Amino acid sequence: MCRFLAYCGEPVLLESLVCTPCHSLIEQSMHASEAKTETNGDGFGVGWYSDRVEPGRYCEVRPAWSDENLQSICGHVRSHLFFAHVRAATGTAVSRANCHPFKSGRFLFMHNGQVGDWSKLRRRVEAMIPDHLYASRTGTTDSEAIFLTAMGRGLDSDPVGAVQSVLADIHDDMKSSGIRAPLRFTATWTDGERVWAVRWASDNKPPSLYWRYTDSGLIVVSEPVDSQRECWQPVPNGGGLVARLGGGPEAFSFH
Amino acid sequence: MCRFLAYCGEPVLLESLVCTPCHSLIEQSMHASEAKTETNGDGFGVGWYSDRVEPGRYCEVRPAWSDENLQSICGHVRSHLFFAHVRAATGTAVSRANCHPFKSGRFLFMHNGQVGDWSKLRRRVEAMIPDHLYASRTGTTDSEAIFLTAMGRGLDSDPVGAVQSVLADIHDDMKSSGIRAPLRFTATWTDGERVWAVRWASDNKPPSLYWRYTDSGLIVVSEPVDSQRECWQPVPNGGGLVARLGGGPEAFSFH
Amino acid sequence: MCRFLAYCGEPVLLESLVCTPCHSLIEQSMHASEAKTETNGDGFGVGWYSDRVEPGRYCEVRPAWSDENLQSICGHVRSHLFFAHVRAATGTAVSRANCHPFKSGRFLFMHNGQVGDWSKLRRRVEAMIPDHLYASRTGTTDSEAIFLTAMGRGLDSDPVGAVQSVLADIHDDMKSSGIRAPLRFTATWTDGERVWAVRWASDNKPPSLYWRYTDSGLIVVSEPVDSQRECWQPVPNGGGLVARLGGGPEAFSFH
Amino acid sequence: MCRFLAYCGEPVLLESLVCTPCHSLIEQSMHASEAKTETNGDGFGVGWYSDRVEPGRYCEVRPAWSDENLQSICGHVRSHLFFAHVRAATGTAVSRANCHPFKSGRFLFMHNGQVGDWSKLRRRVEAMIPDHLYASRTGTTDSEAIFLTAMGRGLDSDPVGAVQSVLADIHDDMKSSGIRAPLRFTATWTDGERVWAVRWASDNKPPSLYWRYTDSGLIVVSEPVDSQRECWQPVPNGGGLVARLGGGPEAFSFH
Repeated sequence: MCRFLAYCGEPVLLESLVCTPCHSLIEQSMHASEAKTETNGDGFGVGWYSDRVEPGRYCEVRPAWSDENLQSICGHVRSHLFFAHVRAATGTAVSRANCHPFKSGRFLFMHNGQVGDWSKLRRRVEAMIPDHLYASRTGTTDSEAIFLTAMGRGLDSDPVGAVQSVLADIHDDMKSSGIRAPLRFTATWTDGERVWAVRWASDNKPPSLYWRYTDSGLIVVSEPVDSQRECWQPVPNGGGLVARLGGGPEAFSFH
Repeated sequence: MCRFLAYCGEPVLLESLVCTPCHSLIEQSMHASEAKTETNGDGFGVGWYSDRVEPGRYCEVRPAWSDENLQSICGHVRSHLFFAHVRAATGTAVSRANCHPFKSGRFLFMHNGQVGDWSKLRRRVEAMIPDHLYASRTGTTDSEAIFLTAMGRGLDSDPVGAVQSVLADIHDDMKSSGIRAPLRFTATWTDGERVWAVRWASDNKPPSLYWRYTDSGLIVVSEPVDSQRECWQPVPNGGGLVARLGGGPEAFSFH
Repeated sequence: MCRFLAYCGEPVLLESLVCTPCHSLIEQSMHASEAKTETNGDGFGVGWYSDRVEPGRYCEVRPAWSDENLQSICGHVRSHLFFAHVRAATGTAVSRANCHPFKSGRFLFMHNGQVGDWSKLRRRVEAMIPDHLYASRTGTTDSEAIFLTAMGRGLDSDPVGAVQSVLADIHDDMKSSGIRAPLRFTATWTDGERVWAVRWASDNKPPSLYWRYTDSGLIVVSEPVDSQRECWQPVPNGGGLVARLGGGPEAFSFH
Repeated sequence: MCRFLAYCGEPVLLESLVCTPCHSLIEQSMHASEAKTETNGDGFGVGWYSDRVEPGRYCEVRPAWSDENLQSICGHVRSHLFFAHVRAATGTAVSRANCHPFKSGRFLFMHNGQVGDWSKLRRRVEAMIPDHLYASRTGTTDSEAIFLTAMGRGLDSDPVGAVQSVLADIHDDMKSSGIRAPLRFTATWTDGERVWAVRWASDNKPPSLYWRYTDSGLIVVSEPVDSQRECWQPVPNGGGLVARLGGGPEAFSFH
């Protein structure tokens, strides 16, 4: 599986969440507490918005815990909206092209979970990616394919419906193919102004997801980055949240 | 473009061709003489047969000229049949998954050339890859897609016809799509016992290809690795050769 | 700390010990059982002897568990004598230059342990490296510095005494510098014909070390690679062993 | 040799100098015009100041021309003072630890040139690094050793004299050792507020160095990044310049 973190609010240094806290995302790359795999050492990525419409991105195939570049970038880049992800590969190669967050235009997307029996489904899901986005398909993960397909179905105009529609089609495809392995989808995405995060699985066992709203902004995480567990709200199974820069999160149901 | 080298014959150290000669493949990674690009620093790969049916492979995204691992492996691996390639990317990412030689089962494949306007054709060529090989598609190059498609069309039973059939379909597709950029295909492949090498381009400008038959065996190269140019035979435009381990090459026409 | 494996005997594929066993070295890179750190994901290396005097070497900064090159090399290189190591960094950078096994001439060397307060001692230990070996100092680890110093003190003529002498000097230096952190040294080295392995620590807590003598040869490991624990002999604290190619190990005391 | 670029002035995106110009530093990584080596593909680095005292840094062993991370970082980091460097190794390994700019406290340093017969001198130059900076010595280049030694001799209080003193000692050492290969030193360094750049060689053949003062600020380069050659002033052999943020450069002599 994987661990991720999203932030939107007052501009802060990336390190304040990615590196510094006692259970920071970098700490989670070696010692995740609530993940199926304790080690998330199969590459990582950070994406952040500055004053451009499209976000910047740094990703690498090494573990996050030992990358001096990541430390330095997080210590010098301040952003009002950023995503970070540490990966535990589930069958696809460790490569930059398979690192989250994925980027398409002004959007970023991160996923924690898995499409069961992905190698059997990959071709059909890739076929759903529209022509104008096909060149953006550079890796082999289920996550990137879902994202690009959702982009093609109007993630900009119907940001929740587009994702739901993709998942519904994949799930139907899994059922008609006799695939029993579950479809698990805990994910977050942004257009640079709003952040969405959802938690759903076909077997009711989606990976964990929490949020916290502080004075500086909203933090969405796979697991809390500090020891104040009482300050973190779990997103329920089948739930989601959306927040606009500067505002608190609103809940919605997602299935 | 790229530069490559194939050898079959008496077992020799890889370094005797890849590293040691005055114009070795490693030298060509920085100073190619007959290529469109002098620098071929976008990754490299070596593949070799030992006593297993399937070949071994080492590839990396760094330039060949500075990789100590490559030097060491070539200085300690002896093989009767090996392929080596240094890459100059033409539009697709520098990644291990895009490094030649590509491997499928007992086959290795290397390509020097380009499918014009590849980003427009990629989807349709990938659609030609049969289901059982689709999971092997890990990169985004035209080269790997052609190889896997040819595998699917019987590279093991009709090793020249399968490739010709794929190229014919791609070329037809290019024409019907109004693509004017050429299809250039100088390539070599092997099943572990025989080596094929061909040189063809839709605009009659295929990348260079030479061979030399020495006491120890057959060497096929993009450009000669030593200064004895008179010892190297050019493969003509629209030509090909095939050799079985221990035998000299036989020419055939390829178009 | 780290985990390592050394083999000498009948030529075997590296994978038979590095990759295939249920608790292989690659498995130990993510899930070591007897190490201070379960994860040994800070780079790795393999070194092997072929028909040359000097060994070949492949090392990389990525974790061993996800490196396709390592799998392929281990599946195609057969050797009568090889070393393999997965690293857990203890304060120095993750870089190829800091990966074990270290190589000098025909020798290979691997270390599991630590010189306490290394950053304070590094300069003085490096000063012990003789001039003609100083250019070989490419990394910053205590391990490489100890090895090169021992090379300079006659590892080829007095293979145990040279190491003991270096450790004694470092230990004296630590005491006179008031360093209380321990010096721990579980290590193995070879000249291509004999293998030495020792286990010692100034605080009597050296990392674990085992050996097994099978029909094919001698295996020395940080921890057993299979589930037949009864077949593995622990090397005692303050002990060592030496074996010549084709012969069983002889024990000696080491302090 | 190498190519580098330094900027101080109004905050600008790094890409405006590193990526976008027709002869940008990235372009120079493959096609330098005035360097001994056209290809500078042995790693690269960028260092920049934000609102912290110490600069951020991103460096990598791959060529600059193919690194998507570099493009993305340069397109999203805006700075009033930054350094960038593409490397052509001269005898030492391609590793992150050998990438410029080097960093020590609030200083950054880049060098283009070479200490002749460095492997013979390395030990003695490293011995000049003071104890408190010795742990910062992570690579093996002459450049880093000169920088750390200059740091130890008061680069903060006597920023030109400290460097001159180090070079004088090394040059004396070279002469007394009978080394005839030259000492060439075209370099630039900064404390985050002022930038120094110098050009000197013991054989009067220092690598090229130019500067341009635009409306936005001062640019110091190995070779001009655009085609307006008349706008670039060469720094004379034996010359240097210093500029404070917001001010034009003042010349001084350096030998």
